[in-house]
Amino acid sequence: MRARDLGLACGSLTPGARNSIADVPGVGVGHTTLNEGDIHSGVTAIVPHAGDLFRDKLPAAAVVLNGFGKSIGLMQLNELGTLETPILLSNTFAVGTCANALIRRAIAGNPEIGRRSGTVNPVVLECNDGYLNDIQAMAVTEAHACAAIEAVRADFAVGNVGAGTGMSCFGLKGGIGSASRRLRLDERNHHLGVLVLANFGNAGDLVLPGGRRIPAAAPGEPEAGSCVAVIGTDIPLEHRQLRRVAARAGVGLAWCGAFWGAGSGDIALAFTTANPVPQRPDTSLLSQRVLAEPCIDLLFRAAAEATEEAVFDALAAADTVAGRNGHRRISLREILSR
Amino acid sequence: MRARDLGLACGSLTPGARNSIADVPGVGVGHTTLNEGDIHSGVTAIVPHAGDLFRDKLPAAAVVLNGFGKSIGLMQLNELGTLETPILLSNTFAVGTCANALIRRAIAGNPEIGRRSGTVNPVVLECNDGYLNDIQAMAVTEAHACAAIEAVRADFAVGNVGAGTGMSCFGLKGGIGSASRRLRLDERNHHLGVLVLANFGNAGDLVLPGGRRIPAAAPGEPEAGSCVAVIGTDIPLEHRQLRRVAARAGVGLAWCGAFWGAGSGDIALAFTTANPVPQRPDTSLLSQRVLAEPCIDLLFRAAAEATEEAVFDALAAADTVAGRNGHRRISLREILSR
Amino acid sequence: MRARDLGLACGSLTPGARNSIADVPGVGVGHTTLNEGDIHSGVTAIVPHAGDLFRDKLPAAAVVLNGFGKSIGLMQLNELGTLETPILLSNTFAVGTCANALIRRAIAGNPEIGRRSGTVNPVVLECNDGYLNDIQAMAVTEAHACAAIEAVRADFAVGNVGAGTGMSCFGLKGGIGSASRRLRLDERNHHLGVLVLANFGNAGDLVLPGGRRIPAAAPGEPEAGSCVAVIGTDIPLEHRQLRRVAARAGVGLAWCGAFWGAGSGDIALAFTTANPVPQRPDTSLLSQRVLAEPCIDLLFRAAAEATEEAVFDALAAADTVAGRNGHRRISLREILSR
Amino acid sequence: MRARDLGLACGSLTPGARNSIADVPGVGVGHTTLNEGDIHSGVTAIVPHAGDLFRDKLPAAAVVLNGFGKSIGLMQLNELGTLETPILLSNTFAVGTCANALIRRAIAGNPEIGRRSGTVNPVVLECNDGYLNDIQAMAVTEAHACAAIEAVRADFAVGNVGAGTGMSCFGLKGGIGSASRRLRLDERNHHLGVLVLANFGNAGDLVLPGGRRIPAAAPGEPEAGSCVAVIGTDIPLEHRQLRRVAARAGVGLAWCGAFWGAGSGDIALAFTTANPVPQRPDTSLLSQRVLAEPCIDLLFRAAAEATEEAVFDALAAADTVAGRNGHRRISLREILSR
Repeated sequence: MRARDLGLACGSLTPGARNSIADVPGVGVGHTTLNEGDIHSGVTAIVPHAGDLFRDKLPAAAVVLNGFGKSIGLMQLNELGTLETPILLSNTFAVGTCANALIRRAIAGNPEIGRRSGTVNPVVLECNDGYLNDIQAMAVTEAHACAAIEAVRADFAVGNVGAGTGMSCFGLKGGIGSASRRLRLDERNHHLGVLVLANFGNAGDLVLPGGRRIPAAAPGEPEAGSCVAVIGTDIPLEHRQLRRVAARAGVGLAWCGAFWGAGSGDIALAFTTANPVPQRPDTSLLSQRVLAEPCIDLLFRAAAEATEEAVFDALAAADTVAGRNGHRRISLREILSR
Repeated sequence: MRARDLGLACGSLTPGARNSIADVPGVGVGHTTLNEGDIHSGVTAIVPHAGDLFRDKLPAAAVVLNGFGKSIGLMQLNELGTLETPILLSNTFAVGTCANALIRRAIAGNPEIGRRSGTVNPVVLECNDGYLNDIQAMAVTEAHACAAIEAVRADFAVGNVGAGTGMSCFGLKGGIGSASRRLRLDERNHHLGVLVLANFGNAGDLVLPGGRRIPAAAPGEPEAGSCVAVIGTDIPLEHRQLRRVAARAGVGLAWCGAFWGAGSGDIALAFTTANPVPQRPDTSLLSQRVLAEPCIDLLFRAAAEATEEAVFDALAAADTVAGRNGHRRISLREILSR
Repeated sequence: MRARDLGLACGSLTPGARNSIADVPGVGVGHTTLNEGDIHSGVTAIVPHAGDLFRDKLPAAAVVLNGFGKSIGLMQLNELGTLETPILLSNTFAVGTCANALIRRAIAGNPEIGRRSGTVNPVVLECNDGYLNDIQAMAVTEAHACAAIEAVRADFAVGNVGAGTGMSCFGLKGGIGSASRRLRLDERNHHLGVLVLANFGNAGDLVLPGGRRIPAAAPGEPEAGSCVAVIGTDIPLEHRQLRRVAARAGVGLAWCGAFWGAGSGDIALAFTTANPVPQRPDTSLLSQRVLAEPCIDLLFRAAAEATEEAVFDALAAADTVAGRNGHRRISLREILSR
Repeated sequence: MRARDLGLACGSLTPGARNSIADVPGVGVGHTTLNEGDIHSGVTAIVPHAGDLFRDKLPAAAVVLNGFGKSIGLMQLNELGTLETPILLSNTFAVGTCANALIRRAIAGNPEIGRRSGTVNPVVLECNDGYLNDIQAMAVTEAHACAAIEAVRADFAVGNVGAGTGMSCFGLKGGIGSASRRLRLDERNHHLGVLVLANFGNAGDLVLPGGRRIPAAAPGEPEAGSCVAVIGTDIPLEHRQLRRVAARAGVGLAWCGAFWGAGSGDIALAFTTANPVPQRPDTSLLSQRVLAEPCIDLLFRAAAEATEEAVFDALAAADTVAGRNGHRRISLREILSR
């Protein structure tokens, strides 16, 4: 079940056909889901194009809304302005293992890495699923990470899947959600899509579209959550513009009722599939197109709306989960149907 | 009329006695209001303590939510972590003049400035009131700036006063607003207060508490607004913590319905009256107290709530204004009473 | 006298024909110099192209090396990535007045500013010349600022002129200096030029090319200086690349012997004359060229070398000055000729 | 052999007794060195105090001089302002494995991590040793990382050890180096120490103290290096001050002749052993001391000098190495003795 199936549409702009990040042509998402005993975790891969990302990098930028997080790869992404691996999402203690998997995969496709060229910059983002998942077990393996990349497709599942398997959101069951907006520029359709790993928000703070509030399902344990928002678009944007767009994920989270809690690693990463950057350009000056700045408000609104709706999408798709140590997260659907 | 008189209370925390930034002991606010012909503008001064700020500076930090703004003084404020003049708010083209006034005033009180000590860092923030005000006239003078400082008091006016005289907000009449929250730490009362200069938001985007939306009063002219939020507290915070708190002003603006438009100079500045920093310390190592980080979520919530309510306070207090060239901004009160 | 006349060439790259920022086609520099009684100050204008900068903005970025400074305009420059007025340099207390002059000049050329379009973002950078100049007098007027812009030319003076009139550097007489490097890309010549307002460095820390040190001319009064470095180029760079290039001004200052003192406002601003940005684009997607990142090391080296040499240029051109209150700065030439 | 044994003393301040980061009381360094076949790599651990860092965190800050690097942990370090694990240095592709080791070690000492408390933030910094080392082999294991921590001591080796085993610097053999400065405040001795992992600089750019240049030992292969500088002190500094001090590592690198090449991950991290921050404070307001800002120039100079000398220390201690694929790096000592 998606957000709109539950009546949780957001904003005024029109979604794309899938209402997901895969409305951006070429973008796919894959999951490895772990559900066994006390393990409720997994890996989600976002692959922005079907080619080799190391050879054809994409312009990208990341913004830290609240930096209580343990990602890898964002520093170089902001310095060089490019993404050169798939983006992996997982639990906090799986970042190192996922990074290792991305490195080995990049080397396999580009044997000159670390020999004749420089190294490769793996990008892994995370949230802490330790409330439901036995995160100390460090159950995610490099094989799990690779399997998520292999499973990439345009029609992907949301809710309790992949990295979202053990996540919590506003005291309810969180997870993976997505949404998109169709944007018309120069008489052509473009898209901006968002995928969130929703694991943030204090119980009782959730605000549904129209202002409806959901009372806390559980007595308020201290938040130790996070939210990762990955924004993709096929509109050509320079790095500075990607940063501006990424920052609006923070608006979307606020619209859901969050105030970017001190213990939350709220990170937004935006990439564009326009203007791929060759690893070895054959000229000193590249030609490209770039959005005229006066049009950017449309993308800001789209990023804010789609982030908000992607969170509701995660909540709408999630099922109630009984996790480690008797911990339990009830789904929004269960709450709304009471 | 204040926000709560109009039923526009926000959030769950308790306000201070005045429900304004002046609930922070020592903080005062003064206005110079200009309303003559096509001039609808002014100056608002925030004075954080009654002493000489150059000799006893206050810890402060600023955060740029969206940098379409022309303030002065924030770079040094963030490098040295201190505020050493009153904070002036005015229209965009009055920044230079207000800065000159602050410099002359600091020199008058401290004749060694620029002679035996270094210089002084004036802090002036602004919004563009050009829709109602003839901003090209550059009508604000140094005398107006000084008069605002002289007029400082704890019980100050809100709405169409001072820098807020010609401001617009969500297509309605904006202006100056304020709110506060009482925070209990170690069994003692403390306060966090916010003052906003509200001049942001597209017509039709406003969301009142409970989710109520106000339809656009006027056909949507392109936003060229801004919002300045000044946050004061008597809780001891180090610079890094002040930045974290200031960032939550962005949450408050989002809760009002904004997405930090591309043309908006959305700036937050936070200061604490605890731990004043002497211009000439008599020791190399200063003693101070600082908030334990696990308590900071309470301040984040307070900053977000009070910023949201301060915007509603500006809207609630504002009266309809007929400005230059037949431009007109209707007050929220007028809209709600229709 | 220029740096190379005194044997103070830096680095390995070849300078342009003028060895100044005016080797970048279209860039000109003008000065207003004030030398009367205790007033030793002025204004320097850098005009990056001969057209109207508000209508045809240039990509630009600023980097704060040490933020003990009181500039105006850098926040918006970094958010929007464009420069829309000439760059003015002056003394610390002249920033407001220079900003007012830039605003009035922009309105004169574009009467829709603040009426039908948004406002204009004046860019003014400063150093504290209070050791030689009676900075409290605030002697710089808007007319002085305008005169500097009117005086713009490609063959401009360096040393004790314009904003450099009263500046000090490593305990010696500082001022305005410039240098450039010729860069070959795709078999065409390009240039990167630097202009500095040199007012930084503790007496005794200066290191000349080859490692020669100059003993302190005067007993070490505490540094309260600054250095502004403006970098221009005709190589197309996106905002992120301009920031990277600007940061290398910090290397040039370090090569002169500085450690970016705590009291120094060390700011670098880089702009490119390629890819001008129209105020009112007639399309949503602009076409442009941009430097391939693997070539950027050449620009980094050029920026570092030219910044270092521009400082020596300021020192080489400066004459000994007797300033207010018996204060005196000896020229490097006088020291070297002893 | 240390830098001063080779006549490579830097600056004017006095070193501590060991002239290393271990002059800061409580700080120790350990290495695991791998030298077998094509593997020339390792791990270096910096342990800032002998207790449990998760329970008693230290104030810390990181600065990115040039972000072509793949570290982990700096985002949270800058948000929360604290260090809660030892700092590990290794090769670029060992970051994930070292992070996993730090996580497991923290859990072993604090079984509530990821269960009743939040997670832990491992800090791992890296350089690319792929010129001499078969970095694709990913030879560093978690056991190697733990062994480096176990080997921590105050009298530690420099040169071709630990993470420095396979590093290159200015076309010569680089590695681990250290230096310190003794600083007197309020009539008591304090220390600031630096440890560098030196793997940066183009052949031919090296400048020795006094300005002596070393011609390129090898024809200039493109730089793909990096430099990590870790700065420790027992002077109490708040986060903002730690950032300011860390930035001066960039001055030290420039003084060695570098211009922070585009392919270099130049990162500085500064921590203080003063004001440890308890994981579970028993009060809302902590008492602490903090350096008065007017004294900070002394620390800036110390950080710049000690970083420069630490690089020379790495070069002085390194031996010539024959690495993978016939690659070879000659030591500075060998060059100087020719």
